[in-house]
Amino acid sequence: MTRVTVWTEYRQERNDPAVAAVYPDGIHTIIAEGLRDADFDVRTATLDEPDHGLTDDVLAETDVLTWWGHVAHGEVDDVVVERVHSRVLDGMGLIVLHSGHHSKIFKRLMGTTCDLNWRESGDRERLWVVDPAHPIAESLGEGFTLDAEEMYGEHFDVPAPDRLVLISWFSGGEVFRSGCCYERGRGRIFYFRPGHETHPSYRHPGVRRVIANAVAWAAGPKGNAPERRDRPEAPEMESSGD
Amino acid sequence: MTRVTVWTEYRQERNDPAVAAVYPDGIHTIIAEGLRDADFDVRTATLDEPDHGLTDDVLAETDVLTWWGHVAHGEVDDVVVERVHSRVLDGMGLIVLHSGHHSKIFKRLMGTTCDLNWRESGDRERLWVVDPAHPIAESLGEGFTLDAEEMYGEHFDVPAPDRLVLISWFSGGEVFRSGCCYERGRGRIFYFRPGHETHPSYRHPGVRRVIANAVAWAAGPKGNAPERRDRPEAPEMESSGD
Amino acid sequence: MTRVTVWTEYRQERNDPAVAAVYPDGIHTIIAEGLRDADFDVRTATLDEPDHGLTDDVLAETDVLTWWGHVAHGEVDDVVVERVHSRVLDGMGLIVLHSGHHSKIFKRLMGTTCDLNWRESGDRERLWVVDPAHPIAESLGEGFTLDAEEMYGEHFDVPAPDRLVLISWFSGGEVFRSGCCYERGRGRIFYFRPGHETHPSYRHPGVRRVIANAVAWAAGPKGNAPERRDRPEAPEMESSGD
Amino acid sequence: MTRVTVWTEYRQERNDPAVAAVYPDGIHTIIAEGLRDADFDVRTATLDEPDHGLTDDVLAETDVLTWWGHVAHGEVDDVVVERVHSRVLDGMGLIVLHSGHHSKIFKRLMGTTCDLNWRESGDRERLWVVDPAHPIAESLGEGFTLDAEEMYGEHFDVPAPDRLVLISWFSGGEVFRSGCCYERGRGRIFYFRPGHETHPSYRHPGVRRVIANAVAWAAGPKGNAPERRDRPEAPEMESSGD
Repeated sequence: MTRVTVWTEYRQERNDPAVAAVYPDGIHTIIAEGLRDADFDVRTATLDEPDHGLTDDVLAETDVLTWWGHVAHGEVDDVVVERVHSRVLDGMGLIVLHSGHHSKIFKRLMGTTCDLNWRESGDRERLWVVDPAHPIAESLGEGFTLDAEEMYGEHFDVPAPDRLVLISWFSGGEVFRSGCCYERGRGRIFYFRPGHETHPSYRHPGVRRVIANAVAWAAGPKGNAPERRDRPEAPEMESSGD
Repeated sequence: MTRVTVWTEYRQERNDPAVAAVYPDGIHTIIAEGLRDADFDVRTATLDEPDHGLTDDVLAETDVLTWWGHVAHGEVDDVVVERVHSRVLDGMGLIVLHSGHHSKIFKRLMGTTCDLNWRESGDRERLWVVDPAHPIAESLGEGFTLDAEEMYGEHFDVPAPDRLVLISWFSGGEVFRSGCCYERGRGRIFYFRPGHETHPSYRHPGVRRVIANAVAWAAGPKGNAPERRDRPEAPEMESSGD
Repeated sequence: MTRVTVWTEYRQERNDPAVAAVYPDGIHTIIAEGLRDADFDVRTATLDEPDHGLTDDVLAETDVLTWWGHVAHGEVDDVVVERVHSRVLDGMGLIVLHSGHHSKIFKRLMGTTCDLNWRESGDRERLWVVDPAHPIAESLGEGFTLDAEEMYGEHFDVPAPDRLVLISWFSGGEVFRSGCCYERGRGRIFYFRPGHETHPSYRHPGVRRVIANAVAWAAGPKGNAPERRDRPEAPEMESSGD
Repeated sequence: MTRVTVWTEYRQERNDPAVAAVYPDGIHTIIAEGLRDADFDVRTATLDEPDHGLTDDVLAETDVLTWWGHVAHGEVDDVVVERVHSRVLDGMGLIVLHSGHHSKIFKRLMGTTCDLNWRESGDRERLWVVDPAHPIAESLGEGFTLDAEEMYGEHFDVPAPDRLVLISWFSGGEVFRSGCCYERGRGRIFYFRPGHETHPSYRHPGVRRVIANAVAWAAGPKGNAPERRDRPEAPEMESSGD
């Protein structure tokens, strides 16, 4: 069974009544609930736990990590960022959610600023599937609509995604590459746009479906860990059917 | 259980003693044997059967089709080519093997000449994994070696693959993009280089592993079939968790 | 100086008063005017000329071909389609405009249906730049707006573009991958969405800029034509600085 | 005229007689010579200069930076790395040469380890063109041969290149993705494999041609710098032909 660790800052839910009204037990609780409903083995971790809840042991037992942060990216310890980075390159999946676009770990993996345009306006958002054969698009049909969300607009300063699965339309006039797949090292990374803290998007069935599909995709079969070293001779590679 | 149809010309095995010595019951028999060992539900079809064995009914019951042809590409009926083409765009996987690079169906899907350089020389071939996180690379380690094969050399006139999984090294001095993934419509396509009719490559455990991995990948979850038509209004897309 | 051939059907402008009102001398005249203003060497060709105006001689003297068709795709001779196809693979650029998505030549090169959703509604269209470093995006800033256009909506059944430069937003609620780059053989192909025959989009400065940028990009430096043949020995490739 | 800054460590040429014998005036001198012959405006900079020769002023006047390092990657000041990183995202081209694969700036941009296999063996290397339409392949024909080089073998731990132009064959049995294009922010990056310090590869006409072609490509037209900020309203984008 795929083991998922759901990580969030869990700050605004405790400090900001507007956020607490939407997610009284924290965003992580609701994301975790959706993933348990999809039959994953789920634990949570948050910023203010020791090691942010992301010890070597926790990461070793995590197949896919989901990441939501917003106001406290700078408080994430660089040691933990490097630990997560190493695990991703070694094969752990990573699902970066909404304002996690500015997290240290996402910028570390992308190599770019990950900047974008935004508007806290309650725009209507329509997410369109542009790669219907992709596993993350399974059961989404043409896409789905969120009645009110923060707007994120292009240009989104990320590498061109290895696969682009979703594009968002906003009622105010913008578009955004909302579902972006990357492979780095042996790890799979998915950026998924929705999820502002004042909107109940993580309770929406379409959003939940995307996250569950993404976790299944990111936990998919991995190749072997390649050796990379001085090679006095080329390896024999005589057979490898097993 | 994934249903595979293994298609070959089955001509040289009956006409050419050098080929019959290697594949007395046809190349398709040996490819099918390898896939049955990998627990797929396998049937075979060959050129000289009615409809080349590829009726609408057979294709409707096929999740992944493997294709090997060489000397009789021109004899494949255009009606069957269009039938296979439609099924691939609708989600059937297609594994194109070796000299199938010049088949009508592969050229139809690629839109290019699919030409390449070649040498029937018994070169030593080493196949290197360049995308170790890809499901098709699973259990291959760094790659594997074939003691004698026909050489295929660049430039290979195909679209840049959506994912490049394997590169071949030949003892005579050439390289080749040997494992190329494409997505077209809702279908997944994999081109895999080895398999000249005078060499027993389809009995090799590494080759068998690649074909089995590719079948599993190409049969992977599909999104929904999108509608494409006049839309007097944008669709509602109210929710889609199911 | 880059030599461009502007091809259109030139039918609706002669038969349909609503189209003639917008393009009295034909769509090709206005596209050609825009390209001459950008200092290209431009000729035009249309469906009802002998060989549709696309003889071997014309194509041999064409660096980039632009293609607009709509109601008469089926009347384009397959011989001419194959002629254009060969020239593209040999290095001629091709700019496919609007309803040219259903032309024989575009479907031939893509290998897919190229189907999409549409609505003749006069939607407002906003074209957003998502790859600001691409030569086709030069001088476009964030993008531009067309006050009224036909809507084209996803899913657009094409291979994932090699580079995606523009995404359209429509006031009715849809999005579309509006500027798609492909490389096939030695040729560069750009699909560009706007240009319904009842709207004056080919007079719009943003649309003109994209087409001019695309022509310059598609006419860019080409590598050498590779040989692809039986190679009894690997080539020497001793040096190649010139 | 495109302005190039050629950067190297310039350490082994002063400390190691075997290297000094090949590059008595430093590797940078020979790379710069090749680029001046190709009509670029070239300056050089090296590790032991103040700010490693890479001040804000120098970078502001640099269209393309070439980077060769090997034994002293750790001595490159993080401040300079961030300065170069910002300039690349803002549009400066970057050509990373040979052992520069382990430079801080390349790893910063790629987000991966950039590890690989190697052998200092004097292998024969054949570089094959696999994207003959790419500007970097111009005038290379099928490729070229280096009589003796260090071997670099797969798996090379980088993101899948946006365009793969060259693949190397080594006499010892390995292959390597030797010419890899990336776009990050508004900048273009090219990794090019050859150039071990004990081999005269930077005097070879094929190597010189690739570097000159890559500089021309990386200095290509740039789009506008996008704004990314809070947008109380979507921008008007009324026209943009200029």
